[in-house]
Amino acid sequence: MDLLADVSNPQNFEPQSQISHLALDIGGSLIKLVYFWRNNDRGRDDDEQRSHNESVGVSDSDTGQPVLEGRLHFAKFETSKINDFLEFIHCKKLCLGGFRDCTAPSSDKIFIKATGGGAYKFADLFKEKLGITLDKEDEMDCLVTGANFLLKVGYCINVCCFDGLLELSHQGNNRVVDMLVGDIYGGTGYGKIGLSATTIASSFGKVISDDKELEDYKPEDISRSLLRMISNNIGQISYLNALRFGLKRIFFAGFFIQGHAYTMDTISVAVHFWSKGEAKAMFLRHEGFLGALGAFMSYENQSLDGLMVHKILQRFPISASSAGNKISCSLNSDPNGNESIECTVRGT
Amino acid sequence: MDLLADVSNPQNFEPQSQISHLALDIGGSLIKLVYFWRNNDRGRDDDEQRSHNESVGVSDSDTGQPVLEGRLHFAKFETSKINDFLEFIHCKKLCLGGFRDCTAPSSDKIFIKATGGGAYKFADLFKEKLGITLDKEDEMDCLVTGANFLLKVGYCINVCCFDGLLELSHQGNNRVVDMLVGDIYGGTGYGKIGLSATTIASSFGKVISDDKELEDYKPEDISRSLLRMISNNIGQISYLNALRFGLKRIFFAGFFIQGHAYTMDTISVAVHFWSKGEAKAMFLRHEGFLGALGAFMSYENQSLDGLMVHKILQRFPISASSAGNKISCSLNSDPNGNESIECTVRGT
Repeated sequence: MDLLADVSNPQNFEPQSQISHLALDIGGSLIKLVYFWRNNDRGRDDDEQRSHNESVGVSDSDTGQPVLEGRLHFAKFETSKINDFLEFIHCKKLCLGGFRDCTAPSSDKIFIKATGGGAYKFADLFKEKLGITLDKEDEMDCLVTGANFLLKVGYCINVCCFDGLLELSHQGNNRVVDMLVGDIYGGTGYGKIGLSATTIASSFGKVISDDKELEDYKPEDISRSLLRMISNNIGQISYLNALRFGLKRIFFAGFFIQGHAYTMDTISVAVHFWSKGEAKAMFLRHEGFLGALGAFMSYENQSLDGLMVHKILQRFPISASSAGNKISCSLNSDPNGNESIECTVRGT
Repeated sequence: MDLLADVSNPQNFEPQSQISHLALDIGGSLIKLVYFWRNNDRGRDDDEQRSHNESVGVSDSDTGQPVLEGRLHFAKFETSKINDFLEFIHCKKLCLGGFRDCTAPSSDKIFIKATGGGAYKFADLFKEKLGITLDKEDEMDCLVTGANFLLKVGYCINVCCFDGLLELSHQGNNRVVDMLVGDIYGGTGYGKIGLSATTIASSFGKVISDDKELEDYKPEDISRSLLRMISNNIGQISYLNALRFGLKRIFFAGFFIQGHAYTMDTISVAVHFWSKGEAKAMFLRHEGFLGALGAFMSYENQSLDGLMVHKILQRFPISASSAGNKISCSLNSDPNGNESIECTVRGT
């Protein structure tokens, strides 16, 4: 249960009363969860809150409502360990992060916002083991809502901006296994259709004619080739889809990326190649949590702790390197990729 | 040298004088060659030829020209064994299948039509070892010419026509390794976006959470999953490209297909899925030889054996199962996939 330890360790999940807005995205491989961890200053009145906000640089002209300050936390679990996950929710009383039906105040029924196929598959299990009802939100809607949320607060990266990343494409050696255009044309490219000598003609193409066994290849060369093959493929399909709708910026998300610089670079290079420089690859931070974030945002229409939450604000420190309208956010992340965003929830 | 034996065995390549129009497509993995093997009735006069043509059912109203009858042969070699291939050409005097420069009749220089990157990469090697000059033709042009040639003579297959092939998609068990939509949603599909419970959500997706080693999986299940992944991918990319140009029929070629029914079926299913039934996958017989065929067709503008060849006719027996304008050709193939088409070359 390494993953469970990861989440419980930094904050110890105590006191549970500081947790609210728990939202789940239960996929085939991973359960992604997002929750709000409120600061201890909960309960300030409006004047105190406004004064505090100003002191930390939050600009908020609408001050007629109670405000909760805290952080959005992101964590992930393996779906195959669903029973461990349920046990964890039970032990840590995470169900307090759900909500009760405001139309039936006497009811004890607790609802938690959830999306992904597992919200359907495991609905009975949650009810049976924890007495929790999963309040299902559509997966695609959540994905879009989550992406819009991150875009709105400027949590995106355009890799053509980070020269350092481009250098990474020269590391490793996928040429040991990939067949390049130059390997076929004898050092020259096939200029007529825009293929340089270094363009990959066939991923793993050299393996066919090599008289070698699997163990004769370095794992890092195989991995590099595989990553480039997948990235090129993703880049091509995404570009062709973008073309259908006349889009020039393509946003990538999902745990495949996980903030890996080389992955982002190869996808960027692929989009550049297929689009002949017309389209650009963009990446979102917390890119694996879009669905969970979307489910989280759906709490905006729910009564929670006596607050009808209708707006969630982010407090993001603007770094010295930001320019123009771009905002570079400082990111808090533990070594296992569990991250957080500082934010404010404003209620009616 | 298995491949060399394959070619030399059925015909023994004797007498060499029966071979003409040798054309090569030298790729990164394979050398594809197409050549014309003339029948022994070479030298007939026009009246004899017309009479013979009528007796075998060839319809040819233009009889003012000498005619060569014979078969187009297709064969392949591994590019990595290029030196064996050169030795074979030398021993079998295949260079007689080339042509001499008609503008310099006294010259001994022999030209052979060739395309593919290897026509550039190995040009010096052919000259040095065999004294042959490769007359290079553009790879893409040859591909299109070869495809048009096969289309013109009705050498294509539409898999939605062959019910028997569809049954194959139910064989094997890629579900052991693939994660289906039903695995995520718990037996139900995700109807809102048209995904049934049996749609593959993630190729090899189950492998991530299985606590197994590679040897715990059956090779046939792994292969089936890999084939479906690649076929689905090819289907999607081809459909997206067809969409750009408003095309409804997509023709597939290349040695990946090699006439395998299951491959053609999975590509067809993929095109049907991505296009929502709007587009159709079509397949060409001899699909791996388009480039070589295109190079072969470029002989039409060359003097050969005193004939200025300008038209190549095919003699294709119309099978009982053909209907409408479709012509089903009987195909001659040895167990190694080396094939032939009966045809006629008409010269000026």
